[in-house]
Amino acid sequence: MADGKATQMVERGVTLWFTGLPCSGKSTVSGLVYDHLKSEGRRVELLDGDEVRRNLTKGLGFSKEDRDENIRRIGYVCHLLTRNGVIALAAAISPYRAVRDDVRGRIGSFVEIYVECPLEVCIQRDTKGMYKKALAGELKAFTGVSDPYEPPLHPEVTLHTDREPPAASAARVLRRLSEMGYLPGLHAPQEPYTPEEEAAIRRRLEQLGYL
Amino acid sequence: MADGKATQMVERGVTLWFTGLPCSGKSTVSGLVYDHLKSEGRRVELLDGDEVRRNLTKGLGFSKEDRDENIRRIGYVCHLLTRNGVIALAAAISPYRAVRDDVRGRIGSFVEIYVECPLEVCIQRDTKGMYKKALAGELKAFTGVSDPYEPPLHPEVTLHTDREPPAASAARVLRRLSEMGYLPGLHAPQEPYTPEEEAAIRRRLEQLGYL
Repeated sequence: MADGKATQMVERGVTLWFTGLPCSGKSTVSGLVYDHLKSEGRRVELLDGDEVRRNLTKGLGFSKEDRDENIRRIGYVCHLLTRNGVIALAAAISPYRAVRDDVRGRIGSFVEIYVECPLEVCIQRDTKGMYKKALAGELKAFTGVSDPYEPPLHPEVTLHTDREPPAASAARVLRRLSEMGYLPGLHAPQEPYTPEEEAAIRRRLEQLGYL
Repeated sequence: MADGKATQMVERGVTLWFTGLPCSGKSTVSGLVYDHLKSEGRRVELLDGDEVRRNLTKGLGFSKEDRDENIRRIGYVCHLLTRNGVIALAAAISPYRAVRDDVRGRIGSFVEIYVECPLEVCIQRDTKGMYKKALAGELKAFTGVSDPYEPPLHPEVTLHTDREPPAASAARVLRRLSEMGYLPGLHAPQEPYTPEEEAAIRRRLEQLGYL
């Protein structure tokens, strides 16, 4: 990309919102998408669990009210980034549909990515041993076990992390972004003709009497 | 600015941190600076009192701990914006020096603007009637009356809002940004010579034997 102006033109901000059960693969896939975009030189930020809790939402718990406030706050930061041309990735369980839709409405450029994975598979993964505790009744309000999860009705992308490896999921997200015009992929200018091709076109046009 | 690349090159992100007593003029001056930068087509965000409380720091009070958490949270968002090329303006009393310096250290591109104004003048302004309540003992932990304010030791800019109108303060901030290389002002190319000037230079160079 030698032309700075063209670079700016394709740098539309957007929020990529990864929602799904605990251990469904949100962090893994969003991390891969982040790495790819970063390596392409895009302005990109990833708002993931620990970072968000440390910097934005310390003190919030797991009541519906606190969960919704958590999502609104992440959504606010995504909004600020998106309207300044940054690709903001949020990886958050975000179990309630209404507040996700509220965030979508505020941001506008919003791509909802449903990280779908059967509960049994999430329980098998149980990367932090939280499902075990929840199933033993030691954790109250644990999404998927003792707290609701409302899947998106019209997500822009649905991933099936039980059936495809993380890299394939990440590639599908990136392809969808290209289709939606957020990445240059599908909109890149064509390669110029080679001298041979140009000569051939010229001959053909001459034969047709246009030159 | 016809050249997109040049535009990108000068678009360095930076955080402008306005600190000072209640009613010292932080919101007024930062609002003017914001308006100017916006009108110049810069990517810019203003994090001011009400907006921040609604979206980021709901539930925090006025203990030292809560005030520091408030500042860290605003600082985190400014950091995300700044490292993505945005000019982030924060207008917050931010009474404690240590946490301001902590935020400065994290962000790096940080311009501290001390909005200095004598307490008596702030009390006269008292735009929301808060000083009155504080002086009557109805408000605990009100900065300047019943809570400390630690002025910056080495701010990049010190404004004197009791002695200069808001527009002059805003102009001083913008000039400082130019000097520091965050705005193109001092780095803009010079006007080209007029034909008359060019002819005069040419004649002079010929007289000197260079042409």
